[in-house]
Amino acid sequence: MSKTNPGRFFEDYTVGEVIAHAVPRTVGAGERALYHALYPARHALYSSDAFAQSCGLASSPLDDLIAFHTVFGKTVPDISLNALANLGYAEGRWLAPVWPGDTLRSTSEVIGLKQNSNGKSGVVWVRTRGTNQHGEAVLEYVRWVMVRKRDVEAPAPETVIPKLASALTPDQLVIPEGLDFSSYDFALAGEPHRWGDYAVGEVIDHVDGVTIEEAEHMLATRLWQNTAKVHFDSTAREGGRLIYGGHVISMARALSFNGLANAQIIVGLNGGAHANPCAAGDTVRAWSEVLDRAETPVPGIGALRLRLVATKGGAAGALRDGDGRYLPEVLLDLDYWALIPM
Amino acid sequence: MSKTNPGRFFEDYTVGEVIAHAVPRTVGAGERALYHALYPARHALYSSDAFAQSCGLASSPLDDLIAFHTVFGKTVPDISLNALANLGYAEGRWLAPVWPGDTLRSTSEVIGLKQNSNGKSGVVWVRTRGTNQHGEAVLEYVRWVMVRKRDVEAPAPETVIPKLASALTPDQLVIPEGLDFSSYDFALAGEPHRWGDYAVGEVIDHVDGVTIEEAEHMLATRLWQNTAKVHFDSTAREGGRLIYGGHVISMARALSFNGLANAQIIVGLNGGAHANPCAAGDTVRAWSEVLDRAETPVPGIGALRLRLVATKGGAAGALRDGDGRYLPEVLLDLDYWALIPM
Amino acid sequence: MSKTNPGRFFEDYTVGEVIAHAVPRTVGAGERALYHALYPARHALYSSDAFAQSCGLASSPLDDLIAFHTVFGKTVPDISLNALANLGYAEGRWLAPVWPGDTLRSTSEVIGLKQNSNGKSGVVWVRTRGTNQHGEAVLEYVRWVMVRKRDVEAPAPETVIPKLASALTPDQLVIPEGLDFSSYDFALAGEPHRWGDYAVGEVIDHVDGVTIEEAEHMLATRLWQNTAKVHFDSTAREGGRLIYGGHVISMARALSFNGLANAQIIVGLNGGAHANPCAAGDTVRAWSEVLDRAETPVPGIGALRLRLVATKGGAAGALRDGDGRYLPEVLLDLDYWALIPM
Repeated sequence: MSKTNPGRFFEDYTVGEVIAHAVPRTVGAGERALYHALYPARHALYSSDAFAQSCGLASSPLDDLIAFHTVFGKTVPDISLNALANLGYAEGRWLAPVWPGDTLRSTSEVIGLKQNSNGKSGVVWVRTRGTNQHGEAVLEYVRWVMVRKRDVEAPAPETVIPKLASALTPDQLVIPEGLDFSSYDFALAGEPHRWGDYAVGEVIDHVDGVTIEEAEHMLATRLWQNTAKVHFDSTAREGGRLIYGGHVISMARALSFNGLANAQIIVGLNGGAHANPCAAGDTVRAWSEVLDRAETPVPGIGALRLRLVATKGGAAGALRDGDGRYLPEVLLDLDYWALIPM
Repeated sequence: MSKTNPGRFFEDYTVGEVIAHAVPRTVGAGERALYHALYPARHALYSSDAFAQSCGLASSPLDDLIAFHTVFGKTVPDISLNALANLGYAEGRWLAPVWPGDTLRSTSEVIGLKQNSNGKSGVVWVRTRGTNQHGEAVLEYVRWVMVRKRDVEAPAPETVIPKLASALTPDQLVIPEGLDFSSYDFALAGEPHRWGDYAVGEVIDHVDGVTIEEAEHMLATRLWQNTAKVHFDSTAREGGRLIYGGHVISMARALSFNGLANAQIIVGLNGGAHANPCAAGDTVRAWSEVLDRAETPVPGIGALRLRLVATKGGAAGALRDGDGRYLPEVLLDLDYWALIPM
Repeated sequence: MSKTNPGRFFEDYTVGEVIAHAVPRTVGAGERALYHALYPARHALYSSDAFAQSCGLASSPLDDLIAFHTVFGKTVPDISLNALANLGYAEGRWLAPVWPGDTLRSTSEVIGLKQNSNGKSGVVWVRTRGTNQHGEAVLEYVRWVMVRKRDVEAPAPETVIPKLASALTPDQLVIPEGLDFSSYDFALAGEPHRWGDYAVGEVIDHVDGVTIEEAEHMLATRLWQNTAKVHFDSTAREGGRLIYGGHVISMARALSFNGLANAQIIVGLNGGAHANPCAAGDTVRAWSEVLDRAETPVPGIGALRLRLVATKGGAAGALRDGDGRYLPEVLLDLDYWALIPM
């Protein structure tokens, strides 16, 4: 029998099953530097130990998206190696900062299954949890993917569609312990805009663009130990290598510094769609829309619910055509909560 | 009003104004490793903790050019986002080593202004200072750039042209505290040549060439949080992405190991010109000319004033045509002081 | 006289001579992160401090191939700058783990010389040893290269051909101090297969492929301070840049995780051939053959002797044509010993 991992197929999942994903990973100063080399990341809390300390933290944590990509990467061999599509995210919460030297691992619980009417594939919902070396949860989120069946004759499982919130409520957001924006230095952070300066419905064009190279997205995707072959093997798919959707998330988030420099910490992921594929040579741009604002239990710390859209062109604010379909230049439509000084 | 940074225009500067640049940055082991991956850097003092300790230092500092690029990168959003040209450097001094874990920030004082005769742009001189988390200065230099006016009707400021030294005098060079070359191991450093082996006027061809890729210069330029869009967005400029001039400086300095392996520490930047643009696909070569030699107050430590020229071809020593213009293959003409064992 | 290093020519070597190679190098968290970005490396012992600690080690050592590349890179200016071909490896042994913060240096003893019958070149055998900052050996191996003569009239040296073992015997393998697989977590490591599950003669197709970019192999090769110009200068050689053979070794070893996830530690290098050149654009794949199995003195720790073959296509198991020549798609044929739980 083959010793290599063929990945799981739709009929291999059972609702309630918990999958412990392999290859724990220690992250640290190297991953932080690479993150800054791969993305134009400038949020001060993740750039400077001194700035993070002035906000009540022990030092600068690793970027919230390093935590996301690392936890996500571990799930690929078990969840999405035979995926036909990454359909969505929900109920994502960052539960604790990841510090340099921490070791992350992931587990996923299967929380939903629904065979497609064509009988050839089905949708799998998992709730993934990332934990550190102390067993503390650092991140959890729900993802659902469309997975091929190995055997189209395999019987369909009972359909279970999980009830998922369309967005986290503000009381579900976890504020990092000790976080304190009372001495926040807006000049050092790069912009004067605080929570009260953002209005629901406001659209921010983040202006800058980055043309993506094959070497860069492969370096990034490997760094998260994501093994999906379409990202690395130019012969695996017509049209060449497909860029990992998370690379576009990080690129857009980094570009959003320009206009959202003080939206320092990502604490919630309400949803997200990889609207169209991204390939090397594309010039990625980004715009944001303020979807909601909320206070938090900690004085001085507010939350913004933001739509972050990555595009390869087009005007800020343009998202869907008249039939409700994503415009062809839209790459990503992400809905998240971030913490910002009030 | 837009929340994104439009950059400053010529009429936004006032002589005497001090600009505190945003986004402090902690640098460390990750940045060091990336520097070695991006450039063929081999100077032993920056490669080995053990070697640095044998020279009286606590450990290997970060490369002097990591300090330069980091401090410089912070100034871009305020100084050169709307720059038409980076015109020159002067009076650059490295004042203290940067250690892994240090957090750097930058401030710039406007020290000169001169509107161009066409009324559409002007030259801005700034003296930039980089400091660490203890408030100690690690680097200072003067740079001048040509900046567009937002409004050509804006009145011209009073012309102030700073008096700048054509070169630092040896007594202005700062020797890192504790530096001691008395046990210097020339074999481990890679070459036997010491201060007395270099003659003023001597030209050294550094032999090797490196062909540059888009991914590499973008990784480097992002690492220094330099946000000038011409480096990243292939659509921003006819002819495609322009390589950050500092990438060429680091490439040439690293290549100069071959012939100047013992010119370990950069302590002064007398001047520099980015003679012609560099683009991906160019094969960068380098040659040096010894411009001056000086003793320092510390026994055993000498200083060499070096011209470092990066080219994309042509003979070592060839710099200008008959009309005094840089030859088209010359990319960089840098004038610096380095410390070397006597 | 030129101050740059022209490299050594065949007539510059003497049997018995020991060459101390220049530029010691401190390696750490940055090199580890870059290794994960450059290669799809997932062996848990090198990915996770917590996993390494569960195997009795103080923390996760740097990848065995980081040690190899670093020690090897130092030898290039003295051994292979004028090499016409890298002919082989033998008797390679990893003697101690390399920990983050360690400083490595290399020395080589010339152990064999044989002038070619054409009188224009000859073969040089060296035994290279890498040591850490405590003077402890971490790695040794024999390499032989074909080197040009500077002067074809130079007299041929006495021919000395070292007697080299075709493979290390199991008793020559060094088990890292403290290594203990008694609490080994196969689920976290990624695969259930242990020593007893592998049969001599078994061939494992590692399935995945990675298309290589110029930027990646140059980043890697510079990281190891390897200065051979054919890897960097697109004008140095017809056909463009040649990829450092070690880059192919690391890529193949990382790909071999899929089927050999528990072959955690490389302890011996019996031999290796860079069968055909590799260039950017090639999609590298890998397969392994189990050549031998051995017990070790430490209970629970077994050794597998593996052939690791990198290809740019073709079937797993296909190595040579009817005349015994490597098939044109074979890039690497490596013979090594790895430790695996029993």
